[in-house]
Amino acid sequence: MTDLSPLSELTPPPFATRHIGPDDTDQARMLEAVGFGSVSDLIAVAVPETIRAKDRLALPAAASEAEAIGELRALAARNTVLTSMIGLGYHDTITPAVIRRNLLENPGWYTAYTPYQPEISQGRLEALLNFQTVISDLTGLDVAGASLLDEATAAAEAMTLARRAGKAKSNVFVIDADALPQTKAVLHTRAEPLGIELVESDFTAELPECFGVLVQYPGTSGRIRDFRAVAEAAHALGAQVVAAADLLSLTLLAAPGELGADIAVGSSQRFGVPLGFGGPHAAYMAVREGLQRQMPGRLVGVSVDADGRPAYRLALQTREQHIRREKATSNICTAQVLLAVIAGMYAVYHGPEGLRRIARRVHRHAVVLAEALRHGGVEIVHETFFDTLLARVPGRAAGVVETARENGINLRLVDADHVGISCDERTESLHLEQVLAAFEVSGAVLADLHAVQDTIPGELLRTGDYLTHPVFHSHRSETAMLRYLRRLQDKDIALDKSMIPLGSCTMKLNATTEMEPITWPEFAGLHPYAPEDQAEGYVELIEGLEGWLAEVTGYDAVSIQPNAGSQGEFAGLLAIRAYHKARGEGSREVCLIPSSAHGTNAASAVMAGMKVVVVACDDNGNVDLADLADKIGKNRDRLAAIMVTYPSTHGVYEETITQVCEMVHEAGGQVYVDGANLNALVGLAKLGEFGADVSHLNLHKTFCIPHGGGGPGVGPVAVRAHLADYLPGHPLREGSPVGPVSAAPYGSAGILPISWAYIRMMGGEGLKAATEQAILSANYLARRLAPHYPVLYTGRGGLVAHECIIDLRQITKETGVTVDDVAKRLIDYGFHAPTMSFPVAGTLMIEPTESEDLAELDRFCDAMIAIREEIAKVGSGAYDKTDNPLRNAPHTADCLVADEWGHAYTRTEAAYPVPSLREGKYWSPVRRIDQAYGDRNLVCACPPLSAYED
Amino acid sequence: MTDLSPLSELTPPPFATRHIGPDDTDQARMLEAVGFGSVSDLIAVAVPETIRAKDRLALPAAASEAEAIGELRALAARNTVLTSMIGLGYHDTITPAVIRRNLLENPGWYTAYTPYQPEISQGRLEALLNFQTVISDLTGLDVAGASLLDEATAAAEAMTLARRAGKAKSNVFVIDADALPQTKAVLHTRAEPLGIELVESDFTAELPECFGVLVQYPGTSGRIRDFRAVAEAAHALGAQVVAAADLLSLTLLAAPGELGADIAVGSSQRFGVPLGFGGPHAAYMAVREGLQRQMPGRLVGVSVDADGRPAYRLALQTREQHIRREKATSNICTAQVLLAVIAGMYAVYHGPEGLRRIARRVHRHAVVLAEALRHGGVEIVHETFFDTLLARVPGRAAGVVETARENGINLRLVDADHVGISCDERTESLHLEQVLAAFEVSGAVLADLHAVQDTIPGELLRTGDYLTHPVFHSHRSETAMLRYLRRLQDKDIALDKSMIPLGSCTMKLNATTEMEPITWPEFAGLHPYAPEDQAEGYVELIEGLEGWLAEVTGYDAVSIQPNAGSQGEFAGLLAIRAYHKARGEGSREVCLIPSSAHGTNAASAVMAGMKVVVVACDDNGNVDLADLADKIGKNRDRLAAIMVTYPSTHGVYEETITQVCEMVHEAGGQVYVDGANLNALVGLAKLGEFGADVSHLNLHKTFCIPHGGGGPGVGPVAVRAHLADYLPGHPLREGSPVGPVSAAPYGSAGILPISWAYIRMMGGEGLKAATEQAILSANYLARRLAPHYPVLYTGRGGLVAHECIIDLRQITKETGVTVDDVAKRLIDYGFHAPTMSFPVAGTLMIEPTESEDLAELDRFCDAMIAIREEIAKVGSGAYDKTDNPLRNAPHTADCLVADEWGHAYTRTEAAYPVPSLREGKYWSPVRRIDQAYGDRNLVCACPPLSAYED
Repeated sequence: MTDLSPLSELTPPPFATRHIGPDDTDQARMLEAVGFGSVSDLIAVAVPETIRAKDRLALPAAASEAEAIGELRALAARNTVLTSMIGLGYHDTITPAVIRRNLLENPGWYTAYTPYQPEISQGRLEALLNFQTVISDLTGLDVAGASLLDEATAAAEAMTLARRAGKAKSNVFVIDADALPQTKAVLHTRAEPLGIELVESDFTAELPECFGVLVQYPGTSGRIRDFRAVAEAAHALGAQVVAAADLLSLTLLAAPGELGADIAVGSSQRFGVPLGFGGPHAAYMAVREGLQRQMPGRLVGVSVDADGRPAYRLALQTREQHIRREKATSNICTAQVLLAVIAGMYAVYHGPEGLRRIARRVHRHAVVLAEALRHGGVEIVHETFFDTLLARVPGRAAGVVETARENGINLRLVDADHVGISCDERTESLHLEQVLAAFEVSGAVLADLHAVQDTIPGELLRTGDYLTHPVFHSHRSETAMLRYLRRLQDKDIALDKSMIPLGSCTMKLNATTEMEPITWPEFAGLHPYAPEDQAEGYVELIEGLEGWLAEVTGYDAVSIQPNAGSQGEFAGLLAIRAYHKARGEGSREVCLIPSSAHGTNAASAVMAGMKVVVVACDDNGNVDLADLADKIGKNRDRLAAIMVTYPSTHGVYEETITQVCEMVHEAGGQVYVDGANLNALVGLAKLGEFGADVSHLNLHKTFCIPHGGGGPGVGPVAVRAHLADYLPGHPLREGSPVGPVSAAPYGSAGILPISWAYIRMMGGEGLKAATEQAILSANYLARRLAPHYPVLYTGRGGLVAHECIIDLRQITKETGVTVDDVAKRLIDYGFHAPTMSFPVAGTLMIEPTESEDLAELDRFCDAMIAIREEIAKVGSGAYDKTDNPLRNAPHTADCLVADEWGHAYTRTEAAYPVPSLREGKYWSPVRRIDQAYGDRNLVCACPPLSAYED
Repeated sequence: MTDLSPLSELTPPPFATRHIGPDDTDQARMLEAVGFGSVSDLIAVAVPETIRAKDRLALPAAASEAEAIGELRALAARNTVLTSMIGLGYHDTITPAVIRRNLLENPGWYTAYTPYQPEISQGRLEALLNFQTVISDLTGLDVAGASLLDEATAAAEAMTLARRAGKAKSNVFVIDADALPQTKAVLHTRAEPLGIELVESDFTAELPECFGVLVQYPGTSGRIRDFRAVAEAAHALGAQVVAAADLLSLTLLAAPGELGADIAVGSSQRFGVPLGFGGPHAAYMAVREGLQRQMPGRLVGVSVDADGRPAYRLALQTREQHIRREKATSNICTAQVLLAVIAGMYAVYHGPEGLRRIARRVHRHAVVLAEALRHGGVEIVHETFFDTLLARVPGRAAGVVETARENGINLRLVDADHVGISCDERTESLHLEQVLAAFEVSGAVLADLHAVQDTIPGELLRTGDYLTHPVFHSHRSETAMLRYLRRLQDKDIALDKSMIPLGSCTMKLNATTEMEPITWPEFAGLHPYAPEDQAEGYVELIEGLEGWLAEVTGYDAVSIQPNAGSQGEFAGLLAIRAYHKARGEGSREVCLIPSSAHGTNAASAVMAGMKVVVVACDDNGNVDLADLADKIGKNRDRLAAIMVTYPSTHGVYEETITQVCEMVHEAGGQVYVDGANLNALVGLAKLGEFGADVSHLNLHKTFCIPHGGGGPGVGPVAVRAHLADYLPGHPLREGSPVGPVSAAPYGSAGILPISWAYIRMMGGEGLKAATEQAILSANYLARRLAPHYPVLYTGRGGLVAHECIIDLRQITKETGVTVDDVAKRLIDYGFHAPTMSFPVAGTLMIEPTESEDLAELDRFCDAMIAIREEIAKVGSGAYDKTDNPLRNAPHTADCLVADEWGHAYTRTEAAYPVPSLREGKYWSPVRRIDQAYGDRNLVCACPPLSAYED
């Protein structure tokens, strides 16, 4: 390891020694196994000289955990949390403390990975199914997905869904003039490259020919529109109707599905998720029957396991971009699982009657405020509203907003004559009095909540029950809620239980000190449109982080706005596109993508209006230079960019990367390097220095934002100077020729303290040491496993980068044992499986990261080797071809304790193949899940309890 | 339930509806089962009219969770956290964030009960064994206990241990003049009633005849004394040597055991436990071989389970006061488990090299400060020191301390001429510069830590290894530490998994909102001797809480100083004793105690210098009035007090309580009512109104402080006005004729926000509703179980109070199945057992509390009824007498999955006696533990790994 503690007798060991798993002794043993005398010797061989950075990272010296917390407290203190009644799709809410502590602040939940291995994910899958049920019930639509990134991008996804689902030939998408401004802006960003024409309408005139219509329900102005007539007109045109709906209002209002919406989108933020200066929050999408197979994002469904018992898993996964690539219609990959789970649990804890009570109280506060304002001579523009009032005060709006701010309340300055005021779960009479004072209206006229009437028109009143499933009625006490959360958590494997060796996912430590600040009120409580002088600490933190990321990557400018890697990719490609256009080379629209690329790349390119041309790879997974030259030659004038991953998706440092860059540049193209594998580069090589023009990073991989069970993520886009002007803009900020890619100006600002703290505590030397250890650990694994499983790709010296691929194809051919069998058998050994069949079918890609210590790495290798011996028994006939511990894996306690044991192997072989499992074994709650059954019989909401009866 | 939400359509439900498990529907069903139409009907019959309170509780209206947090934030903001270098046994420390979040802030750890059921407590027992190993290794003594309350009371326990262990006939105990002032004060409080004479010495003259000697190592002044000669002299007199030692210093200093100490005591606070304005912190005690069977408090030992595998449990439990009663020599019951676990984990995380590094850095900071002060002309009194300097500044001390405070540093004002300065883990050069500035010495003379020499004399340097066990070397990365904590947690049952129906322990909800404030820096970071103007928020919170407790109990004054129920009892009896003395009736020394009393009562009475006279109980467990009259008659002039529990330890509201009080008062005695069962009274009856003069309360029972696996607790003492002058005093506060009973002025101040928040959020009506529900729930359980198990004691209308006792004696006689068998079998059903054989051998006492919802109560009843059916099968011969699921319980997964199943019942009967267990069963990590083996083969430190090999 880079020597991190020269004064080790008197100075506390740096945080890096806690972040990095192996200590010096472990490291020495690993180096010996890999055959190197020192880490620098290893790195000298593993990492091509051509890309090596010359200088140390120019970052502040590493802070201790206590120092970093102190600095973050000082930054937090420079944020001012006023009461925000701004609205605009963000509303203050109360996160129930039992949910905050036991879910949001609990590594058992936040360190989990996306539930691609459903058997070890039943807890969070159930939690997501609750979320889907909430969405489906409240929107009155048949199928809801397991969350999207934010309301604005969800609206954009709905737009493209409408386009491909409908029969209409038009290129026009009509958007409500009363839609959220950030939704309009993101729709513009998304529509333009796809050739979609946006037409804004207040729906007073006849609907033009279009393929879809988006109505905001209620509108940004607060107005509640009965859009039945609009929907009928749209349907008559063959267009789809998208309702962007406020979730809380739907507990009182007629469901969008009842009014004719085909698709509903919105934010679930106000269901208990902190404002966080704009995110992360879970957006939702629900669709009517018939559209579910075209929905973007993930969908949790119910299937059955090998014993025929109900079990949850992600449904319809073939829709994901890694399968469909350039034919994909969305590049969504990361979702907002942790936040969707919180929103679902908020509904579980409050139940339908509690949600309705909260909504009615919010509404009544708006009603008494409206009455008082009118009584004071202020015009309220709309007669009907849910929580938001539009007050007309000709020429006085700025003054009112300013006075309110002095009283501790942020209102929305709509224009010189109008002020917007939104009530929320935290609104009390006291706040209303302060608002009234800002309007120079006496608080004495404020009526009691019980003395007024609701203003929702009868024809828009909700009828019928919702959230009738028992889960929304059973956990009403804090004790019951705590146990429900714990019970679900205990079903799952997250990083708190064992390593998650997922190739390309970088499941490293999410340190507590990094996580603690995100729930401090000064970071969690800020509205994204609060005036910047209330967010001084945030802005300094964000700009500091962007600067550090630029230094780490060798780029010149960074934007943290994209709230997922896919959005960062999209933003990067938009920058390239805008750059070419600005130079009068708008015809450059070909994007070269190697066949080994991550599926998202192609999907993003299509979204950015590019044409994908695939470049071949050689047998080692490297870009085939000859084919590259050929493709460049054929597309020289149309070449926009190449998208490559570095190190490659095969986990190898391609020697030819600098050549690739030169060839593309020479032809006038730009080089996009996917930063997914940045954990193999930090401190050793800088993307921006060895030839790339733009990258997206994954803060949820390399920079310690936890995966949260499948989100949140942050996907900053980093560019060289010539592209800096084309980073994403935002309607409420200074302009950019490129529009925003996320709803909030700073994307998922609420979780940026995590990456800030990580870099602050690691310092340049610590980051470098982490990368070195990640490389050493991957090579150690490769060496230990190589005698048992072929390691598929290696670079110089037979070395891999930060991950390795083991090849089971021959083994499968010889024995019939598949990667799936190995993955499921690993569950019996207490492990989450490595990445399956990516980038090569029939293989497993293993990424240990620097955070796993030697004992855990060895435990994993021991498991893999023991499994190989089991495979050998299948091969030799010692185990039956079908009735063996691999094919029947995972084994539940239930099946192992059965009175009859009908298998051709023993219970001990099934349960305790290695003795260490007798100490604290993980028990899978279900047996192997039947994927096909679930897709044939799609159930995406909470099943009735009778489904679980034997 | 008392109607808590009259405006339910618009107002959020009060916190009480989250705290109380059953909702209105559940409650109606329970009332029907118990045969009452309303809660008030039930209460009218259950609670005697004679004791019923006439008025509602005069408490502030219930605050919402958000409001309470807001008020606590405001109080916290009124505390000022300076850097405290005061010393006096309290030192700032860094709680590793991974430990704070995953242990101190984790209900999986803090809601656990004392590990009396060792099979479901293996995780925390291992954690305590780690603590014991740390103490034993660092003190160089053979056996260490699992924590005591604080250093001062631990010293007092050591004093009485020395007295009973030694051969010396003297009544004299010699204490070091350089001992901590609070230790001296508590020793005085404890010595006086026992007739022990304390002699202070600086050990320059010859040692007087004595039974024990206490040396402070290093001394309060910082001086490090080589006490070998003192120890030899003491031993020559037949006296025991007690060393009160600073744990961190022992990583560098020769171990007390090597210097001749027989007993070592001290605080483990600086091993990662927040200052918390004085507590809670875990004190330690270690003894040489030969004394272990006389040690007070709990001792974790290693034994074997039914399969012969190592398993942990509490050793030598026969020493506990509930067995020895008035022959007990200590009334210690509650320990400081949660804090001991933190201290042990701090050692696990840092390891010996890390602890030594921290200690050396602390020491070097003191060295460079001493050099700089001397250079600046300030005299440093002692040549050798570890972390504390005594600076002599004739006439200037107050000025120096004042200036330092202005610079943000609290120093210790020793007297007009001396200032004490202690360095700690958080000390940085910056702090030293500020200290120097206060002395008007230039910071420029401050040397580099590496440029100076340690000052510890060679003959006192530590030699030899410590903490060599692998557990102190295996969890050095945060990931490894997180998983270790999670692995231990997962082995245990705490309230996060299922109900813990322990009679007399009141295992109710510890709500997150109550818990959150205790780790805020403004509450966690204050030194107990920080000037009061830095603790304004704390003092207001404490005085507010004392006032509310007085209102709830009907007393006139309350002191929260006692940091456990036992200390509250002791303080209450001291108040009675002082009252009699002050009135010239010092000969009143007889304390009447009913035979049904909790063992602690008698032990406390003996400690307070009283003679115990036992009063008989009738067959219903009630005080036998005839025998009481007789005993009063025989002791009329000597009668000091009666100690009763109300409702009785049998869980019954005795109708005669007012008579008992009158009889004792008439004879000039005082009435002490043990508040252990206060959860049956709050809001319905007030102790201070129906005849009692003094009580202790258990905030860790009735007022929601979690049990923490066996502490911390808080045991306030509450008195009527005539006793108010005799509440505990403190040397650093205004005097009281009674000395302090705890080391810190406000005892365990750090956890008082929990009870404050509980009362604040419940309000008077909420508290009453909780009591009503607790009574209803106990009666519901009694009704459901009565057809299957006899319910032993009932009061009017066949009702119980807040708990019920079921009698297994006849069942045992008929079938051989014991309470132990039932308790262990409950583990297979996923439950912690009820209280076993207290207050009556052969019975189980069940207390459901108000926080358990109906579903959980029914699940428990279903388990008990299913167990009764299993017992019947043993009785009928359908099950073998010895090889049955009861006798073999608990069953581990290991034994159930074995290839051979040799039992006379099926695996399914063993594992899944009720089908609901197939959803998320708790698996006991060990089988039934052999208690006798462990006591015969006492092992009280971490065993070598080889012990675990098969």
